[in-house]
Amino acid sequence: MTEKTNAPKADSGDALAFSSVEDLAALLARRKVSPVELMETFLRRIERQNPALNAFLTVTRAKALEDAKQSEKFLQRRRPRSPLEGIPIAIKDNLYTAGVRTTAGSKILRDFVPRHDATAVARLRKAGAVLLGKTNLHEFAYGVTTGNPHFGAAHNPWDLERIPGGSSGGSAAAIAAGLCVASLGTDTGGSIRIPASLCGIFGIKPSFGRVSCYGAVPLAPSLDHVGPLARTAGDAAVLLGVIAGADPLDDSTLAQPRLKPFADARQISARLRPRFTKKRPLRLGWPRDYFFDAIDPEVVFAMDAAARSFKELGAIMEEVSLPHVRDGDAPSTAIALAEATYVHEAEGWFPAHAADYGEDVRKRLEMGRDIRAADYLAALDVRKRVRADFGAAFERVDAILAPATPIPAPRIGENVVMIGATEESVRSALIRTNRPANLTGLPALSMPCGWTRGGLPIGMQLIGKQWRELDLLVIARLFEQANPEFRRRPPVH
Amino acid sequence: MTEKTNAPKADSGDALAFSSVEDLAALLARRKVSPVELMETFLRRIERQNPALNAFLTVTRAKALEDAKQSEKFLQRRRPRSPLEGIPIAIKDNLYTAGVRTTAGSKILRDFVPRHDATAVARLRKAGAVLLGKTNLHEFAYGVTTGNPHFGAAHNPWDLERIPGGSSGGSAAAIAAGLCVASLGTDTGGSIRIPASLCGIFGIKPSFGRVSCYGAVPLAPSLDHVGPLARTAGDAAVLLGVIAGADPLDDSTLAQPRLKPFADARQISARLRPRFTKKRPLRLGWPRDYFFDAIDPEVVFAMDAAARSFKELGAIMEEVSLPHVRDGDAPSTAIALAEATYVHEAEGWFPAHAADYGEDVRKRLEMGRDIRAADYLAALDVRKRVRADFGAAFERVDAILAPATPIPAPRIGENVVMIGATEESVRSALIRTNRPANLTGLPALSMPCGWTRGGLPIGMQLIGKQWRELDLLVIARLFEQANPEFRRRPPVH
Repeated sequence: MTEKTNAPKADSGDALAFSSVEDLAALLARRKVSPVELMETFLRRIERQNPALNAFLTVTRAKALEDAKQSEKFLQRRRPRSPLEGIPIAIKDNLYTAGVRTTAGSKILRDFVPRHDATAVARLRKAGAVLLGKTNLHEFAYGVTTGNPHFGAAHNPWDLERIPGGSSGGSAAAIAAGLCVASLGTDTGGSIRIPASLCGIFGIKPSFGRVSCYGAVPLAPSLDHVGPLARTAGDAAVLLGVIAGADPLDDSTLAQPRLKPFADARQISARLRPRFTKKRPLRLGWPRDYFFDAIDPEVVFAMDAAARSFKELGAIMEEVSLPHVRDGDAPSTAIALAEATYVHEAEGWFPAHAADYGEDVRKRLEMGRDIRAADYLAALDVRKRVRADFGAAFERVDAILAPATPIPAPRIGENVVMIGATEESVRSALIRTNRPANLTGLPALSMPCGWTRGGLPIGMQLIGKQWRELDLLVIARLFEQANPEFRRRPPVH
Repeated sequence: MTEKTNAPKADSGDALAFSSVEDLAALLARRKVSPVELMETFLRRIERQNPALNAFLTVTRAKALEDAKQSEKFLQRRRPRSPLEGIPIAIKDNLYTAGVRTTAGSKILRDFVPRHDATAVARLRKAGAVLLGKTNLHEFAYGVTTGNPHFGAAHNPWDLERIPGGSSGGSAAAIAAGLCVASLGTDTGGSIRIPASLCGIFGIKPSFGRVSCYGAVPLAPSLDHVGPLARTAGDAAVLLGVIAGADPLDDSTLAQPRLKPFADARQISARLRPRFTKKRPLRLGWPRDYFFDAIDPEVVFAMDAAARSFKELGAIMEEVSLPHVRDGDAPSTAIALAEATYVHEAEGWFPAHAADYGEDVRKRLEMGRDIRAADYLAALDVRKRVRADFGAAFERVDAILAPATPIPAPRIGENVVMIGATEESVRSALIRTNRPANLTGLPALSMPCGWTRGGLPIGMQLIGKQWRELDLLVIARLFEQANPEFRRRPPVH
């Protein structure tokens, strides 16, 4: 599984470009590198590689260098505002950036320039992060391939003929290829975790209500989440600590317990240190139902290996039953379709500008018009039952382990995949293991857990208890440090 | 307006039957009357008058007398459990009563006998109240006339040819005619306040989430409220104090601030004493928009008089603007239609038993099938705007004064009324002034504020701030005590 063939030579270029926030913060603190130098490294890499990857829709070169210079000046006078001080970060192009066009990957918003930042973006800036551009995505985040009809498809750095996944495909491709340190994405049915899985990086969808969605172009508001894509669990934890927290502009965030930000990079190891003991070991749930239904054999192999690795680390693997999760499939679709169509109607985009949408998104918006309110309300009832299933499972385990995606990255243009003897649409295959965490609002992450013989990353998912993102990140970091071979560099393009 | 003609002789019978909880609690405490005597009085009156009124669908005579005896024994040994100790109370027949059939006024649930009480009912019993029967209502609470096709129409005690309003028509008629002391009803679009207004009694719809709806046959869950109908503000306060409070079986109740129950009847005057001063006078809002749109001249006259009365009591009347309330009409309808159809579909009643519904309810359930989810979601957006309007108004005033119903009680069988030169359906006329408080979840009460020349009661509405039911009841009691002539006894039937 860790054997790798036919892959072009891995990127042996700028070591900085593949460093974690933790490492970069240390280098910045010791003046081994300056924010401007760091930014120049990434801008150079973007210039070279983005034509092949199409990960960025907009690169804010001048502003990025200017902001890096400001950060540099700041560091000369004062302590860093956070571990993100001077760190180059990319933003998915459906998150508002003041003065920088925010297309949502659409023709309709092609020329839209917001006057303010999304709350999460503003918090990153305030923490000292330096934005360097806006990343490609599936049109309006309404799909999983990032095969964008208006701006061109984004490509997977591990194989340019393959999709990076979506909808946050540009963000994941950029991190994987070393074109930025981390990114903010959105996740309505797996849009952070799917590209993280297919690109071999780290992505976490926080608890619903943890991160403000203010200034995120909405897709399906009761399923929408903003969250980080990053290189490591520690990096994701730092980003999450910055962007989490109540925001009066998003009611759903107001009831959350506090998630303390990381004051400096040294807190990462301290706060993410596992505290499991023989008496209180890590307990991981292995779902009996649904999550292992139709899974590519190489993914099954990697998942089995991951479970073994966890056992070697002292974890207890327990089978858990989630009998109603399967019943959540049709209701999840109904909720997503109905809410998306509602949003696009309310904004006056659809059906007024129906011709401006890509065919797949237009078709889904049309389907959403046919969802009845009574069925939408019935779907909300099923959602409660699915939540109750997870609640029962979490009485016994700390987190649930499942494949992030049943398959590695499909080819661009492929609409259907074979999984064993089963034919399934790419969309359905990539979404189905992710959607339960959107339906329930539970935090869930995807991280690399192996590689196919063809050299494609395989992602595993950890689903956790409401508001317990840090617990999930502790488990992820434990796994990550025990399996350093899963962090790799793709070929240069 | 207070002149009364053509009315038959008012009921000069049992004085007890028209006493308030406050007065009865004092009599019970001084052993001037026993719970059994009290119960016998009401059972006798029900026997005599219910054939004409059809206010009760079920009278639990034997159980009521047995429970009254238990209460009597209890009082011989101990202090009353609450001001409701030994007080005969009727329950609207869509609230579960253990061992007593709960028809919801429907053929479908004609023989349904719940095994447990609704939470509100259980709390009344625990407070020592004695239930004496189940009251007539509009089928499934889905209408405002209580013209029940399965159990016969309920009649207005002030004029048997007129409706008592609905859907809690039986409860209001029973209180008005002195057939019980108080009652529990439900209110989804005015179903407590409309019958209170048309029957000349007191009714309060609490804040959404104040009283558990567990064990109430649902109509439209996001608009449904359980609340008291009673003779006075003090009585309603006592009932509300008993039934309010968090209930794990109804999530919506979990976040409420505490409403302290009334330990004994003497607390009523103390806790409902107005604390307004010259420096901090009572401020009442007089809506510029919507609420006075098409109102019967006699109702306008009574409202003007009510405003004058408040001014004489030291209140300041302020015009308030609620520009979006009008926009809430169609969304309110969409929400109610969609949720009701969802409930009836989920229960398997509709369309499976379509033939068992009355024509009006079946028609509305059919209409509910056509509501699109996208429109339902758009309606929830309007709801937010309407809430914001009230929020802005409540920055300036303590409560909003409005007609409870634009018209006094229409005749049974009348589907359309003339209001001035405007023809309007009875349903629309009775609902429209009430619905905003359901859409927003704000507490609202109806109380008598005058009489038509023909001897029909006129009701005024007070709408208050979220969770501030007691403030509303203080204002109501102030008005009530300044205008004792509005409390009358109807003719004997």
